[in-house]
Amino acid sequence: MLDLPFLPFCAFLGGLGFICVAFVSAWCQHWRGGFSLDGSIQTFNWHPVLMVTGMVVLYGAAALVYRLPPAWSGPKLPWKVLHGALALAAFILAVLGLAAVFRFHNEQGTPNMYSLHSWLGLATVLLYSCQWLAGFSAFLLPWAPAWLRALYKPVHVFFGSIILLLSVASCVSGINEKLFFSLKNGTMDYKHLPAEAVFANTLGLLIILFGVLVVGALAKPSWKRPDADSPDSCQ
Amino acid sequence: MLDLPFLPFCAFLGGLGFICVAFVSAWCQHWRGGFSLDGSIQTFNWHPVLMVTGMVVLYGAAALVYRLPPAWSGPKLPWKVLHGALALAAFILAVLGLAAVFRFHNEQGTPNMYSLHSWLGLATVLLYSCQWLAGFSAFLLPWAPAWLRALYKPVHVFFGSIILLLSVASCVSGINEKLFFSLKNGTMDYKHLPAEAVFANTLGLLIILFGVLVVGALAKPSWKRPDADSPDSCQ
Repeated sequence: MLDLPFLPFCAFLGGLGFICVAFVSAWCQHWRGGFSLDGSIQTFNWHPVLMVTGMVVLYGAAALVYRLPPAWSGPKLPWKVLHGALALAAFILAVLGLAAVFRFHNEQGTPNMYSLHSWLGLATVLLYSCQWLAGFSAFLLPWAPAWLRALYKPVHVFFGSIILLLSVASCVSGINEKLFFSLKNGTMDYKHLPAEAVFANTLGLLIILFGVLVVGALAKPSWKRPDADSPDSCQ
Repeated sequence: MLDLPFLPFCAFLGGLGFICVAFVSAWCQHWRGGFSLDGSIQTFNWHPVLMVTGMVVLYGAAALVYRLPPAWSGPKLPWKVLHGALALAAFILAVLGLAAVFRFHNEQGTPNMYSLHSWLGLATVLLYSCQWLAGFSAFLLPWAPAWLRALYKPVHVFFGSIILLLSVASCVSGINEKLFFSLKNGTMDYKHLPAEAVFANTLGLLIILFGVLVVGALAKPSWKRPDADSPDSCQ
């Protein structure tokens, strides 16, 4: 691939992540009535904001920690702690995001976990909890043997990208579903593509772009730690 | 990752792909009224079947051609032709699948291209047409210079996986959308999770599993052609 410098790309990605969070917040605030904690539809609105912020943007930031040039030299432990802490923050936001939608459903008497979006979303968060626990156990706890770290590392790296892309697919199906739910009267029907629909569809495309660029950055060989594939980098 | 042999994995993947096609066909035949070409809802039913068969299963088969051990030795041209032909067949099915939904919408007076699913799906097929044309021009036409092939190859490989995952995200959002459209009367509401909803949600998860396994197989270093990264493998 072309030899872009990492830091300007990373700044662009940071800006794109910020725009995704701003877009999803603006959508819920401006068109969907804002936020509350009372179990009403405004409680639901925390769900998209927390999932996009946690499972896409913070997750992407956590994934890219080892691509920062300062992480390439010196002790690896501080960068591992930063990676794990950002990933944990992403996980906590995801759990709060799930709590928001369950609270809203339970308050309204709506069944939980019936749509494909909900099946995929919950499976993604469960997979992510396994990924975090396995990563913490293998790479941060001091007693994991080197052979186990070496064996698990490519699996952790592969599922790192896959879980991000599953999150993106969950967001896309969720935005699509929410627009069909919300835009269904004559003048504001989704199929007439009112301003809200264009805005939220654009949000979906921006989330996809963010996810693809993060996965692309992770895959780019010249942006990996020079010793990333050597056995001692697993320790 | 664990050192699985490729051929049994490939046979499993073939079976999974067959099950995906069987599931999407059974869904449309058994619950959605079957198939026709008259512009009715039965014309629409070709859309999910052709998209899953083309953009997921045939696409996955095309992507894995170079991982077959017989492709590792001897002249590369026959394998390139097979890869390009399977990819072209996938593209043709995708175009027919798009034609089915446009025909249905136009016949019913429904606007086209308003949902996020439609935006993502069309963007994926357009990206795929660029990928196919660029791949054909760079790797099958004899006059592309070696430096161009070497430069473009990692881009082609990266977008190969990304387009498959975008197809999977399009399928997930499409199945979700279709179930909200179709299951909305009292006894058959999506939220009461009737048999059709469980069946089609399961189809969505199987498609995701297929996509993730294909991308995993593509990423596994020991399943790549031994000379895959050498300059002459691009020629």
